[in-house]
Amino acid sequence: MLNTNQNCNIGFVGLGVMGKNLALNLADHGYRVAGFDLDANKIQDVLDTEERERPDTKKEARIIGCSNMENMLSNLAKPRVVVVLVPAGQPVDIVCNNLIKAGIESDDIVVDCGNSQWTDTIRREAEYKDYFKFFGTAVSGGEVGARFGPSLMPGGDADSWKHLQPMWEAVAAKVDENGKPIISNTPGKPVTEGEPCTAYLGPNGAGHYVKMVHNGIEYADMQLICEAYHLLRSLLGYEPEEIGKLFAQWNQGELDSYLVEITADILQQYDAATGAPLVDMILDSAGQKGTGRWTSISATQMGVPAGIISESVYARALSTLTTEREHAAGILTAEVESGEIAAEDVEKAIEEALYCAKICAYAQGFQIMRAAEKEYDWTFNFSDIAKIWRGGCIIRASFLQRIADAFDGNRELENLLLNDYFADTMAKKQAGLRKAVVLAAQSGVPTPAFFSALAYFDGYRSEVLPANLLQAQRDYFGAHTYERVDGEPGQKYHTFWQEEGRPERKV
Amino acid sequence: MLNTNQNCNIGFVGLGVMGKNLALNLADHGYRVAGFDLDANKIQDVLDTEERERPDTKKEARIIGCSNMENMLSNLAKPRVVVVLVPAGQPVDIVCNNLIKAGIESDDIVVDCGNSQWTDTIRREAEYKDYFKFFGTAVSGGEVGARFGPSLMPGGDADSWKHLQPMWEAVAAKVDENGKPIISNTPGKPVTEGEPCTAYLGPNGAGHYVKMVHNGIEYADMQLICEAYHLLRSLLGYEPEEIGKLFAQWNQGELDSYLVEITADILQQYDAATGAPLVDMILDSAGQKGTGRWTSISATQMGVPAGIISESVYARALSTLTTEREHAAGILTAEVESGEIAAEDVEKAIEEALYCAKICAYAQGFQIMRAAEKEYDWTFNFSDIAKIWRGGCIIRASFLQRIADAFDGNRELENLLLNDYFADTMAKKQAGLRKAVVLAAQSGVPTPAFFSALAYFDGYRSEVLPANLLQAQRDYFGAHTYERVDGEPGQKYHTFWQEEGRPERKV
Repeated sequence: MLNTNQNCNIGFVGLGVMGKNLALNLADHGYRVAGFDLDANKIQDVLDTEERERPDTKKEARIIGCSNMENMLSNLAKPRVVVVLVPAGQPVDIVCNNLIKAGIESDDIVVDCGNSQWTDTIRREAEYKDYFKFFGTAVSGGEVGARFGPSLMPGGDADSWKHLQPMWEAVAAKVDENGKPIISNTPGKPVTEGEPCTAYLGPNGAGHYVKMVHNGIEYADMQLICEAYHLLRSLLGYEPEEIGKLFAQWNQGELDSYLVEITADILQQYDAATGAPLVDMILDSAGQKGTGRWTSISATQMGVPAGIISESVYARALSTLTTEREHAAGILTAEVESGEIAAEDVEKAIEEALYCAKICAYAQGFQIMRAAEKEYDWTFNFSDIAKIWRGGCIIRASFLQRIADAFDGNRELENLLLNDYFADTMAKKQAGLRKAVVLAAQSGVPTPAFFSALAYFDGYRSEVLPANLLQAQRDYFGAHTYERVDGEPGQKYHTFWQEEGRPERKV
Repeated sequence: MLNTNQNCNIGFVGLGVMGKNLALNLADHGYRVAGFDLDANKIQDVLDTEERERPDTKKEARIIGCSNMENMLSNLAKPRVVVVLVPAGQPVDIVCNNLIKAGIESDDIVVDCGNSQWTDTIRREAEYKDYFKFFGTAVSGGEVGARFGPSLMPGGDADSWKHLQPMWEAVAAKVDENGKPIISNTPGKPVTEGEPCTAYLGPNGAGHYVKMVHNGIEYADMQLICEAYHLLRSLLGYEPEEIGKLFAQWNQGELDSYLVEITADILQQYDAATGAPLVDMILDSAGQKGTGRWTSISATQMGVPAGIISESVYARALSTLTTEREHAAGILTAEVESGEIAAEDVEKAIEEALYCAKICAYAQGFQIMRAAEKEYDWTFNFSDIAKIWRGGCIIRASFLQRIADAFDGNRELENLLLNDYFADTMAKKQAGLRKAVVLAAQSGVPTPAFFSALAYFDGYRSEVLPANLLQAQRDYFGAHTYERVDGEPGQKYHTFWQEEGRPERKV
């Protein structure tokens, strides 16, 4: 099991699901991996898997197991590259400190491929800079992505990136010239052509930040699909299989995406034990791991409207109150209308609503990243970000090519909604979104993300909002002042609301 | 100006707008105040104001000016009570440290009456415990409230509260037996009867937390009023004055509240310079100072659905993009319907919508505080909280008596919506909320808070939500597992989506 030839290209600390699969992916691409895990069974598991999957490569021993960190380091060519794939938070710092004890050097690169919060990555890059180069790379695509091609979102110093780039580009997901994923899920037969789904995003926490926003968008994408399903089922009485087929059909059009594809698949499954649609046997209490919340909170802190993402986070929170909702269902009655409307009209409206709301959700996501550029002194290439999400990750969709095109066409695009294609689409399809909102409101089906999307669209395109009244209220009770539409920009006014004649004065 | 008789009841550090008015209020109630400010003009201003307002009390010198902190402390009876009214953040700590240098003692009580974040109050109580008792009291009601009766939200150690209670109850706003504010805005003639709008809320940051939620609710209240105004104006073409009169009429019914009252007043004002409705001359770009954001973020961190509050925060953020919105208005066209609907039906629907949405916003606010109890180990009396908001503060409304009644009737009430009165009201008036949402969606008027309120109501009363599909998606791409509706609670299942026959296994 031991080897000290310094002939490995990359080390791994942590061989859990993500570490194991990313190591196997690297090995598929010809890289020699030195792997360590505190759990010896996990080391053995990755070695056994490689032997089973790629028996022909056994002699080359592309993955070797290491009994401790010193041993792992001694197997690595310098400057060493060590991938850390352990749970986010304190474990990452524990590993970093153990690597220092094990003799890591200042030219070596430690890559955190976990789900770390971007603020931790910013802190760590600074904190460990005398000991090694701390580099962040967020990995999207789950187990299968890690194994056969994830979307990789790197952030850190540019020199380290040069060193990592060939490996990252090798193992990342690939897309063809049309931006469609090229998929091979066969061990030992990796995809070696196409455009890789990775690009250098900026220093320190940039990669983990972009991944967080990816996840926030993913929350919205999933919630919108669930609302479309819920509406179809409630309004038209469709069975899951029927809805699954409709989703499969939508997946041939502009909604073409991994999430719509798996939704179509899920909805057509039946439970082996009961024969019921499988989805009906699954408890409607949604888990969440935090990245959606972080996105919502970061947007709120920076003052970026992100209602669709936040409503999606809240929808998951509300879903967990299963007992309370059961109780409420018995108390809170619905006064709803059951309008007469043709099924095909409803289907069309919901398909359009889903696409329009998706556009609005992505618009919000990109606005969050735009604000983060200023907040954290990053410079994003938004086209690159859209491109590296085209394959490997959960929100991969042909739609992302449209976003890349939009930013390629205008690097300074203020908001996705203002791009010709998206503006035209909203013009053509907004009637469907309006109809879906109307139907949901009339029938009592909760669709918070659809609602929020329409409000965002209508708010964003409103030259006049009632915030003038709000400013008057604030001035009335708190003397917070206001600007006048005919005043100099920045000139504040206050009306003395309690005085005779309500005099207004410059302040 | 100097006096070292230790015959003052309370000291003030900071005699800005809030400090000055609270000091005058205390003096009105017979308390002797020793005031200090770094700005000697501010000291002189409060003395001049007292002399002007209450010439008959001049000889008693109920407010004395102090040239430094030592002098202020030497004027105070022991244990000393010092109110700090300086900008939130570092200034509070600077004052605390200066008080230590000036000789404050461990039995003395320092009361932070500023807009501090509750986490700072928790930290400070611990940090200064060897030097003095740090106590928090949030003050709501702005300048006028501070002068003639604010809502006071105290949090800190119970012993200090006993010492402060008589003063706090004297200066707080008062309500009559029906829960209506008793108002006297005449200097020297304070209200001395009625129930005071203050109650001990709990240790350390409890008071500042409750005040933060108050402000989050205030954001929602204001946004909902603005949306109602915007709808009336857009759908019916009403002029502001006409809408103001309608609000005045609503203020006679269940919507009776300070914010509706001042809205009615604002909308009936005309600009002296142009003759236009004043509100039309005010720029529609809303400011915010942070407490709305904090509420939204705290709710999101704890996993409490708070969409109405968050959408209200985002609505303000969106309003500030005035140039971008003007640009967007020229690009993003609206495809809207102009249905035929009688004006009186629209008016009725919007009035009902406003009340229903308000109920939902308060339900969210109280759920946030319920979660905070667990998070910070507080025990709130929700009836008390509703009661102390009935007078003095910005969200004062007869509606708060209903909330107090609800919690008096059932201390363990899971959610305001489940109380008989509120459930009945939602049953009777929800048609108006649905109608308002439908009209907004059809006509392209952005009403994010109305939308969010309806989605919350319909989500909360849904026995089944589409989170089952969402859990299936998460299990599909990330092996996140799910529970079955017929499984043991807590038992997780995973479907092997990539395997033949999609086997499901317990995990």
